[in-house]
Amino acid sequence: MLAEIITIGDELLIGQVIDTNSAFIAKQLNKIGVSVYQITSVQDDKTHILKALKNAESNVDVIILTGGLGPTKDDITKKTLAEYFSDTLVQNDAVLENIKSIWKQNNRQTLLQVNIDQALVPSKATVLMNEVGTAPGMWLENGNKTFISLPGVPFEMKSLITNSVLPKLKDKYHCPFILHKTLLVYGLGESTLAARIEAWEDALPEHIKLAYLPNFGKMRLRLSGKGFDKKQIEDDIQLQIENVIPLIKKEFFGYEDEDGNEEAVIANQLTKIGKSLAIAESCTGGKLAQLFTANSGASQYLKGGVVTYSTQSKIDVLNISKEVIDTNSVVSAQVAEAMAQNVLKLYKSDYAISTTGNAGPTKGDSKAEVGTVFVAIATKTGVYSEHFNFGNHRARVINKAVNKALEMLQKEIFKN
Amino acid sequence: MLAEIITIGDELLIGQVIDTNSAFIAKQLNKIGVSVYQITSVQDDKTHILKALKNAESNVDVIILTGGLGPTKDDITKKTLAEYFSDTLVQNDAVLENIKSIWKQNNRQTLLQVNIDQALVPSKATVLMNEVGTAPGMWLENGNKTFISLPGVPFEMKSLITNSVLPKLKDKYHCPFILHKTLLVYGLGESTLAARIEAWEDALPEHIKLAYLPNFGKMRLRLSGKGFDKKQIEDDIQLQIENVIPLIKKEFFGYEDEDGNEEAVIANQLTKIGKSLAIAESCTGGKLAQLFTANSGASQYLKGGVVTYSTQSKIDVLNISKEVIDTNSVVSAQVAEAMAQNVLKLYKSDYAISTTGNAGPTKGDSKAEVGTVFVAIATKTGVYSEHFNFGNHRARVINKAVNKALEMLQKEIFKN
Repeated sequence: MLAEIITIGDELLIGQVIDTNSAFIAKQLNKIGVSVYQITSVQDDKTHILKALKNAESNVDVIILTGGLGPTKDDITKKTLAEYFSDTLVQNDAVLENIKSIWKQNNRQTLLQVNIDQALVPSKATVLMNEVGTAPGMWLENGNKTFISLPGVPFEMKSLITNSVLPKLKDKYHCPFILHKTLLVYGLGESTLAARIEAWEDALPEHIKLAYLPNFGKMRLRLSGKGFDKKQIEDDIQLQIENVIPLIKKEFFGYEDEDGNEEAVIANQLTKIGKSLAIAESCTGGKLAQLFTANSGASQYLKGGVVTYSTQSKIDVLNISKEVIDTNSVVSAQVAEAMAQNVLKLYKSDYAISTTGNAGPTKGDSKAEVGTVFVAIATKTGVYSEHFNFGNHRARVINKAVNKALEMLQKEIFKN
Repeated sequence: MLAEIITIGDELLIGQVIDTNSAFIAKQLNKIGVSVYQITSVQDDKTHILKALKNAESNVDVIILTGGLGPTKDDITKKTLAEYFSDTLVQNDAVLENIKSIWKQNNRQTLLQVNIDQALVPSKATVLMNEVGTAPGMWLENGNKTFISLPGVPFEMKSLITNSVLPKLKDKYHCPFILHKTLLVYGLGESTLAARIEAWEDALPEHIKLAYLPNFGKMRLRLSGKGFDKKQIEDDIQLQIENVIPLIKKEFFGYEDEDGNEEAVIANQLTKIGKSLAIAESCTGGKLAQLFTANSGASQYLKGGVVTYSTQSKIDVLNISKEVIDTNSVVSAQVAEAMAQNVLKLYKSDYAISTTGNAGPTKGDSKAEVGTVFVAIATKTGVYSEHFNFGNHRARVINKAVNKALEMLQKEIFKN
């Protein structure tokens, strides 16, 4: 069972928009045992889309298209699909009703012809009703090959994938079971890790694949298994994990959750033990808080945070003494620890984490080298910090500081 | 001049990693007049990569590959390229020296064979020296077709694109000039906007393309021109903009900057007028602060912010009276305005922006419907807020709140 995802839109090919739809779709397909063979982004151009469809049909069973279903002249996916299937576009009354009802809900002006035309679909298509937007999803078949066309707006696409596409694919195809387990490994470079586990890796059975995924100072080791016997795959992967862990005992830190969020692991643990968190950020500028609050349920454990970006704000908002800053520099262990301790008090939380550093490109308010970062953890009973140098690339310094802060926090809350 | 970007890695096809490299490369190629015809993501599989290479060579002039250059067994790009060019891998001494020097800089352990093997390159390749990592870039030619292989680690890839790939491409090819101008339009749906400007759109000359890019409540209207006469393209696009603006006079708000950051427009203006900003976030959870601090130079205008996520923290940290919260609900115009006013005082800033709302999926500490958001702006002389309902999809509520906050702030700071 193979699939190809084709994303349509000039905005992708000029780099104006990052294609996040493909990763979402790929992850969902994987969960039901469909492997994605290829992801292809093509222009809003009929000839190009036709070529991509033909190419995909020769390689895979399921072709999922996103984009090009809007009401404007650059949206040509429907016309192109009709041509590919030697079909014509006909008005679908249920879709028209849906458009009218969305119009009404949003108190919009009169329907224009371009809005009515969104109810046109190829006559051979089964409509996948879009409950959150005006562009319908479409399902077309050619023998055992399935073509699915979805809107490019991420939340409309997601709703259709979850509510229509996955159930229909599970109905139509007999899919194998796919399992990925990702181990988090800290403190080993890619090649050192590879050398350490080489004999184990070479002895992996054919149906289990291994991948190394470095990510800003942590390494993810992904084991993937695939087959029709679910229990067998689970057992085989479990066995391999039991074999590899003794080889990386000191560096193995746990498993990445299904969605790849380390912050979700922390969130679940804090919720479970009924403890709260506060965050004081300087160089990470709100990114830690944003990561936690992106997931629902954050109010269960997150009291909040401060972004004390300017030096003066560390004094005004976090009540750090000017003397501590002047004596040690604003980028120092002392300031990081005071930030963590004071934000803990301010928010009355059980745990607090802080970052202060210089992400560059210029030196700013301290003499610390670009890339210098201190991360501190405070609890009701103590405080400690670590000192890092993350190089001179701004986004990388911020991302590495975020990852280190998560790593330190994770270690702290799992102590108990 | 056409290019294809091929990104290699199973992690892309199982949705574990979002491909951000392609958008960066596409944007850079565009700036030097190279159009990206297609972006293709393929598995770590020799047969598949060979097929993608052949396909790309038949369609475009320049093929850029990323990924698969690491030291581990799943990294097979070099071997595959050597096979495609009927070539063998040979050790490159300059690359080996670079690896040794990076090893030394980072105080790593002894070089392993897999590290030494990173110095192997196809004998026909020109090496593009990687100054920030151990995997070399490679440049191979087949007649007028160019193949460029780059590491998948984003900051290594970016460094090679900027320092080696772009200058070499400009040398080799006579590229046309490409210009994109993107207009920001607020308050019009896609179809209403399209109807309004239909006559103008239909009269656009052949060499100027138009695209509609909706994005969480704002619309971007992109004009793209391409040709060898730079001045002519600039004039033609300028003329079309002058023709369209009178049709959207009330809704046109300005231009998107080159990188698509609205926050950069705000940052530049605040820096220019010498004013400062503070941010109080509840439902946006740090995302506003994070957007501003992601760009260097934020310390020029950003004092900082607070993420007062819990209701109690609005009292403890922002000093909002319990009575105001109890009387009006924590999700209310009064609380949003008090947040903005108090964070302005706390950080001693010239402008402040605040968000309070319910991003869902459950109701939390207020009775407000999921999706309700208040955004407030405070200055030294006043405060005002707006009330929104952004529906019941968490990520969408957060993103729309962020966009509205940026829109309101932008309007405020450009008043003067």
